[in-house]
Amino acid sequence: MSSHSESDDIKAVAILGASGYTGAEALRLALSHPRIKVTALGAERKAGKRLQSVFSHFHHWPDLPELQASDAIDFAALDAVFVCLPHAASQNAIVRILDQAEKKGDAPPLIIDLSADFRLKDAEVYQEWYATRHIAPHLLPQVVYGLSEFAHDRLPGAKIIACPGCYPTACLISLLPLARQKLIRPSPIIIAALSGVSGRGRSLTEDNLFSETAEAMQAYGLDGHRHRPEIEQELSEAFASPAMVSFIPHLIPINRGELATITVQLEDGTCIADLRRALEKCYREAPFVTLLPEGEVPSTRMVRGSNHAALNVFADRNPKQAVVMAAIDNLVKGSSGQAIQNFNIALGLPETMGLEQPPIFP
Amino acid sequence: MSSHSESDDIKAVAILGASGYTGAEALRLALSHPRIKVTALGAERKAGKRLQSVFSHFHHWPDLPELQASDAIDFAALDAVFVCLPHAASQNAIVRILDQAEKKGDAPPLIIDLSADFRLKDAEVYQEWYATRHIAPHLLPQVVYGLSEFAHDRLPGAKIIACPGCYPTACLISLLPLARQKLIRPSPIIIAALSGVSGRGRSLTEDNLFSETAEAMQAYGLDGHRHRPEIEQELSEAFASPAMVSFIPHLIPINRGELATITVQLEDGTCIADLRRALEKCYREAPFVTLLPEGEVPSTRMVRGSNHAALNVFADRNPKQAVVMAAIDNLVKGSSGQAIQNFNIALGLPETMGLEQPPIFP
Amino acid sequence: MSSHSESDDIKAVAILGASGYTGAEALRLALSHPRIKVTALGAERKAGKRLQSVFSHFHHWPDLPELQASDAIDFAALDAVFVCLPHAASQNAIVRILDQAEKKGDAPPLIIDLSADFRLKDAEVYQEWYATRHIAPHLLPQVVYGLSEFAHDRLPGAKIIACPGCYPTACLISLLPLARQKLIRPSPIIIAALSGVSGRGRSLTEDNLFSETAEAMQAYGLDGHRHRPEIEQELSEAFASPAMVSFIPHLIPINRGELATITVQLEDGTCIADLRRALEKCYREAPFVTLLPEGEVPSTRMVRGSNHAALNVFADRNPKQAVVMAAIDNLVKGSSGQAIQNFNIALGLPETMGLEQPPIFP
Amino acid sequence: MSSHSESDDIKAVAILGASGYTGAEALRLALSHPRIKVTALGAERKAGKRLQSVFSHFHHWPDLPELQASDAIDFAALDAVFVCLPHAASQNAIVRILDQAEKKGDAPPLIIDLSADFRLKDAEVYQEWYATRHIAPHLLPQVVYGLSEFAHDRLPGAKIIACPGCYPTACLISLLPLARQKLIRPSPIIIAALSGVSGRGRSLTEDNLFSETAEAMQAYGLDGHRHRPEIEQELSEAFASPAMVSFIPHLIPINRGELATITVQLEDGTCIADLRRALEKCYREAPFVTLLPEGEVPSTRMVRGSNHAALNVFADRNPKQAVVMAAIDNLVKGSSGQAIQNFNIALGLPETMGLEQPPIFP
Repeated sequence: MSSHSESDDIKAVAILGASGYTGAEALRLALSHPRIKVTALGAERKAGKRLQSVFSHFHHWPDLPELQASDAIDFAALDAVFVCLPHAASQNAIVRILDQAEKKGDAPPLIIDLSADFRLKDAEVYQEWYATRHIAPHLLPQVVYGLSEFAHDRLPGAKIIACPGCYPTACLISLLPLARQKLIRPSPIIIAALSGVSGRGRSLTEDNLFSETAEAMQAYGLDGHRHRPEIEQELSEAFASPAMVSFIPHLIPINRGELATITVQLEDGTCIADLRRALEKCYREAPFVTLLPEGEVPSTRMVRGSNHAALNVFADRNPKQAVVMAAIDNLVKGSSGQAIQNFNIALGLPETMGLEQPPIFP
Repeated sequence: MSSHSESDDIKAVAILGASGYTGAEALRLALSHPRIKVTALGAERKAGKRLQSVFSHFHHWPDLPELQASDAIDFAALDAVFVCLPHAASQNAIVRILDQAEKKGDAPPLIIDLSADFRLKDAEVYQEWYATRHIAPHLLPQVVYGLSEFAHDRLPGAKIIACPGCYPTACLISLLPLARQKLIRPSPIIIAALSGVSGRGRSLTEDNLFSETAEAMQAYGLDGHRHRPEIEQELSEAFASPAMVSFIPHLIPINRGELATITVQLEDGTCIADLRRALEKCYREAPFVTLLPEGEVPSTRMVRGSNHAALNVFADRNPKQAVVMAAIDNLVKGSSGQAIQNFNIALGLPETMGLEQPPIFP
Repeated sequence: MSSHSESDDIKAVAILGASGYTGAEALRLALSHPRIKVTALGAERKAGKRLQSVFSHFHHWPDLPELQASDAIDFAALDAVFVCLPHAASQNAIVRILDQAEKKGDAPPLIIDLSADFRLKDAEVYQEWYATRHIAPHLLPQVVYGLSEFAHDRLPGAKIIACPGCYPTACLISLLPLARQKLIRPSPIIIAALSGVSGRGRSLTEDNLFSETAEAMQAYGLDGHRHRPEIEQELSEAFASPAMVSFIPHLIPINRGELATITVQLEDGTCIADLRRALEKCYREAPFVTLLPEGEVPSTRMVRGSNHAALNVFADRNPKQAVVMAAIDNLVKGSSGQAIQNFNIALGLPETMGLEQPPIFP
Repeated sequence: MSSHSESDDIKAVAILGASGYTGAEALRLALSHPRIKVTALGAERKAGKRLQSVFSHFHHWPDLPELQASDAIDFAALDAVFVCLPHAASQNAIVRILDQAEKKGDAPPLIIDLSADFRLKDAEVYQEWYATRHIAPHLLPQVVYGLSEFAHDRLPGAKIIACPGCYPTACLISLLPLARQKLIRPSPIIIAALSGVSGRGRSLTEDNLFSETAEAMQAYGLDGHRHRPEIEQELSEAFASPAMVSFIPHLIPINRGELATITVQLEDGTCIADLRRALEKCYREAPFVTLLPEGEVPSTRMVRGSNHAALNVFADRNPKQAVVMAAIDNLVKGSSGQAIQNFNIALGLPETMGLEQPPIFP
């Protein structure tokens, strides 16, 4: 890492993929962060444009850097890079950054990857699900999977942080504490997940058009959503045995928000109160995960625009089952907010820095 | 039934609860029905008002009857009454209608109840779930539960038709053919259900306000939704053994639409193809239930404004499980449309009469 | 016209552009029309596909014709063609249809054009606004501008009907009766118009994405919207002097609906009551235009999914001004519904045939 | 003012009406303000409840004060009070606060009123429009009308600040610079205004229900909206002659956002460039008003959740006219954000303190 990274000074960061939603959200949050200065904004097809012509809500910040091609960015001058590119593009950019640093003999900037490229530990599983060969499997062992609440120990000193997918974030916050204590069974775990449309990014497909999506709802990814192996990977590790997850995402006509409604099987001898206790203990000190009072149902309106997760557990009709629920904002805790949270932890800053803003309601 | 009911003439009907959404929807559909004439519109608090002052989309039909108190309606002149009142109010009105007819020695009109009052066969279960004593348990044995596709035999000649709840309609269409053939297990059955806001009616509660609901989503009824015993009642009958259903409804910010995503356990020796075949066979002749081509996901946009149900079945991650999905419009097939469908079948009219309109999209 | 067109038989029609929203809407309405049989569905890029793969809400109508290239359609067998193509493509298709008929010596089918290609009477004005040379200016004189309420006399026997744009429909319904009687001045006329997103069609642009549009609103077309010359053309004719219209459309995140709020200058000696009387008189017999009771404000929820227009006039703060308002469904009265209405009038069928369905609310 | 008000310490503030939307928004913003500590939350009907049971998005802030009756609050300990009550209730509370301070001999806290009670300078005009007698007309002369950009001189030292209505804020930001320089005429000024639903508050009326409002749009207040006299009052002062404003608000199904599309008459000899120059000059140093680049249209998505206003001016079809447009978030710049901005200016803090967060998009 460059000499800029003294813990009390301003960190210079670049955001790659600044013309997409997660890139713009990383920028929004970075602008409220007292220790971040965004010195470069990467975008490929839109390189050379003013950011404001791509995201008009930044008109009030006329002095932001222009969009430029990743190639043109001098990464040596940076403390960290937020990589908000699509998968495949992301690993290419990251390898380039690391190579550049090596050639120059510089310490590379901290890489915070918001794509899927470094989430799966096994390059073959990656290739199977993403239909892309992984070009840097040698890097995978040193990657830290950045579900912040469970990565405090490994983030400081990390070189590459793989931020979890939005669905895995909501699901794993709900399940990891229960899996680690073996209060629930590794299978079946049945997840009905609901996501707002921004989770699909800014790509021009018919399905993303307002008229196709508004006043409608449906499931998708029935043939296997790419977030499933990621959830199973982390759960299997927590259970120390293979977990099997039925994962059904639904597309809901709202901009932001993600909800996971998860039906779990209780292990023999455990009850709802045990689950509640485990969640309570796990998140007692967690600044961004709120276990709601008993009976209160998590809603995405509790977290809109913020890095918070609202969590609760309920008895099920079937006494052998329970229902765990979590609501997050897919663009914040489910993506760019968690990236900043990881940045804070990795660099020894207060975990909540730049992320204290309350949710927006209505 | 009165002398009006010759099969080829116009049927005189009343709609009680015409100031609520299901009442208005019954009227909308009735206006397109070539053999229905709506001669009375009941409403209690709003009696005396012009319908148009309560539902402005009827301004183009200036000649509709005024809203009047149910008491003031002459039921003897009617062929059928659509009762779109809240539960409890509904049974009171129905008992009054039947008493009036009995006193006068008239044949009572056909009663088509859209409320919950006559759906549960056991008055004590009703009381437990609706916190209301049932005042006419003696009528329950003669009630026909009007899930149209499964009631063809019993509807003709029925005196009281209890139209299913919106959620039970979507769930039972998905599950009954599988339960009857014992292709799936009676438990666990895990239902994630999603409903538009009109399903909550027109009552003035904070939760129903636009600003509370728009751009948000959440589950509700975690302590037991009233549609669960109804689903279990019908499923248990189909299985000929007690079914246990985990039922979690979610509120989604759209006006109309209901989606059921149901995870079922396959019986030993059955596979997805068996399920598909059973659904196909069951609905081959059903005019309003469409089993989609393999792999195609039911969306509420396929059925908006229409009486159709879109249905499909999918393999699950867990080979012992399958996922069945159905999408309906909660106000049409989930309520007033099915009421008209039942009316048609009961009176010997073509099942689709007045209900042929395609869905509205976008 | 072909021999099929006896007034009491079924009319064979084709819909060109069936993969777009106005095409799909024409089909939706045609399916409820007792005298229309859709025998061909044209689509260019999507030719060869099943309609259901393009519009999933038609799954319940498995027997609809496949999408085919316009070239492959035998127009000789048709009574009418609804042309729902983009401008420029439309005139090309129409010229081809007419040429084909002429070569074969057949009577051509009735052409009902929903595009802009034949709305403007002056080919040069067309070229200026649509940046396309008109290839058939010789046809313009015989075109009937199909604002149905004002074209009853000219529609029967018409060969080409140019259906008005959605905005012009709402605006001209509001203004023509006042202009003809010279109750208002030809200038200034200030129109704030609001449209749902379906009015922009199904094209893949960033602006049409759900996430860009939902929970937002803005004006557009400030440098001159193409519907303005159309409105001015018709108004100038009605005034018998040049009208000048300030026209500012706004994009609103709803699927369907269009609202025109129009500030007009009263001519000396006229008052609101005169305006109201003129509107009342003009539309007394019009089945689809409802002048609301005094004080009642037109809302798009009064007309959603239907061919109706809701209209009213109000006093303004400025005693020399008045406000006229109209609400329509942009896809029905603003497009495909009016096309059917024109078809009915042109062929001597009852004006309301196939269009009697009430609006959908909620 | 109490001894707490040293310019570099923390200010203790109360929010009255904390169970309404503007109260909750004031709290949201106050929580991000480094120099505000909210020590009391007033609510009448909901006094005694936890704030989180009324606004679930504050669950992550468990230590906020409980809701209490205004009467029970000790105002002497406070530096400022944000009064987010309905009109009439507001003046009662304010008079009580001032009386309490006078009796005790304390300096009263700074009163920042978000209601309409102190906006109109003439108590009789107030009574006419709000159907309520003003109980404290003697206070009116010392009130500062807090349209921040035009009140910098008068806010420091103010005792009562009347924050403008949301519509007046958008309209006056657009018009005041032009009126002061007499670049436009005082009449006619024609305003088409569009507002999200949160502008109507949290009251339980049918019109505010999701199902009545979603997928619909309409004008309202045609018989005279209460914000009109407020706009005319300020404009008349700026013109130094009576202004007459035609003001037509529309209700749009979004949560937040307000848009004003204003048609003005140019004074002889002025042109668009003059208007642009005047706006540019007026807002060059204004941190929250952005004059967009030429041709760029203000959208509410540019300002969602933030205190910014997006502004622009356009040529009109009619060369004697021009169109000025402004977009704001009705709950921030249109209400609670401007209240904080006024608080900052009044107390000598940096104007942008606590309000620097970028807009939220999507």
